Amino acid sequence: MDLLDRATARIWLTTAVAEARAGLAEGGIPIGAALYGADGTLLGRGHNRRVQDDDPSTHAETAAFRSAGRQRSYRGTTMVTTLSPCWYCSGLVRQFNISRVVVGEAATFHGGHDWLAEHGVQIMLLDDAECAAMMREYIAANPALWNEDIGE
Amino acid sequence: MDLLDRATARIWLTTAVAEARAGLAEGGIPIGAALYGADGTLLGRGHNRRVQDDDPSTHAETAAFRSAGRQRSYRGTTMVTTLSPCWYCSGLVRQFNISRVVVGEAATFHGGHDWLAEHGVQIMLLDDAECAAMMREYIAANPALWNEDIGE
Repeated sequence: MDLLDRATARIWLTTAVAEARAGLAEGGIPIGAALYGADGTLLGRGHNRRVQDDDPSTHAETAAFRSAGRQRSYRGTTMVTTLSPCWYCSGLVRQFNISRVVVGEAATFHGGHDWLAEHGVQIMLLDDAECAAMMREYIAANPALWNEDIGE
Repeated sequence: MDLLDRATARIWLTTAVAEARAGLAEGGIPIGAALYGADGTLLGRGHNRRVQDDDPSTHAETAAFRSAGRQRSYRGTTMVTTLSPCWYCSGLVRQFNISRVVVGEAATFHGGHDWLAEHGVQIMLLDDAECAAMMREYIAANPALWNEDIGE
């Protein structure tokens, strides 16, 4: 499989960032994600909905995955997320053989992306300053909600 | 934390089996789960909804987790599932520090329960004949749907 180029990853990240901002505007935790197909088609997008729907199971990645509907195969797909995926969302990527993960930032939370890399998933960490600032501000203002979202 | 006794685990498994049967009756994949609190209260229950809702994100364990709503902590909770949890559902257990997993059977599918045990989760594998027979029959009759559900 081809390596994703950084310029495309940056463009795709804007979709995930738009989702994170939409979540924040709704009063939610600002994490967004998007699932892109092997041909670059946007298959699904979504954001964390713990606060909005009182739903602890809807992390950004699971929301984007659900939004893409049933797919026969995830070969060649890319999960783009504003934040390093937690174990739950990393498990999703591994189980369904999603080929790549683009991570906006892993400075505020370091999830399972190293584990995914060990298991053959292509990881591109963008160290995006806007993603990191958005999370840093949110966590500082809402520490209890954030800890609830990561089970700590 | 106390070890779960096998008799209690067997009783709790009946809730997960009832969920699996309900899913089967709806035309769905027969995997069920239930989340029990530290005090033995049933917090949530659910089953796989890929077929019923065209929703690939709702595995039995995620359905039970969602059904339990927001919890401040999962300390002392037990996830009871008719089938060994896939990486996605194993990741859920690890991220939210669910203390124990009761597995109906791991003969038809071997997921991430060994990995969870390595990371301190108490695992009780019941080798339940009814759970195994239900999955074996379903997989034989619906191989494509089953492979879709585990991303293969």
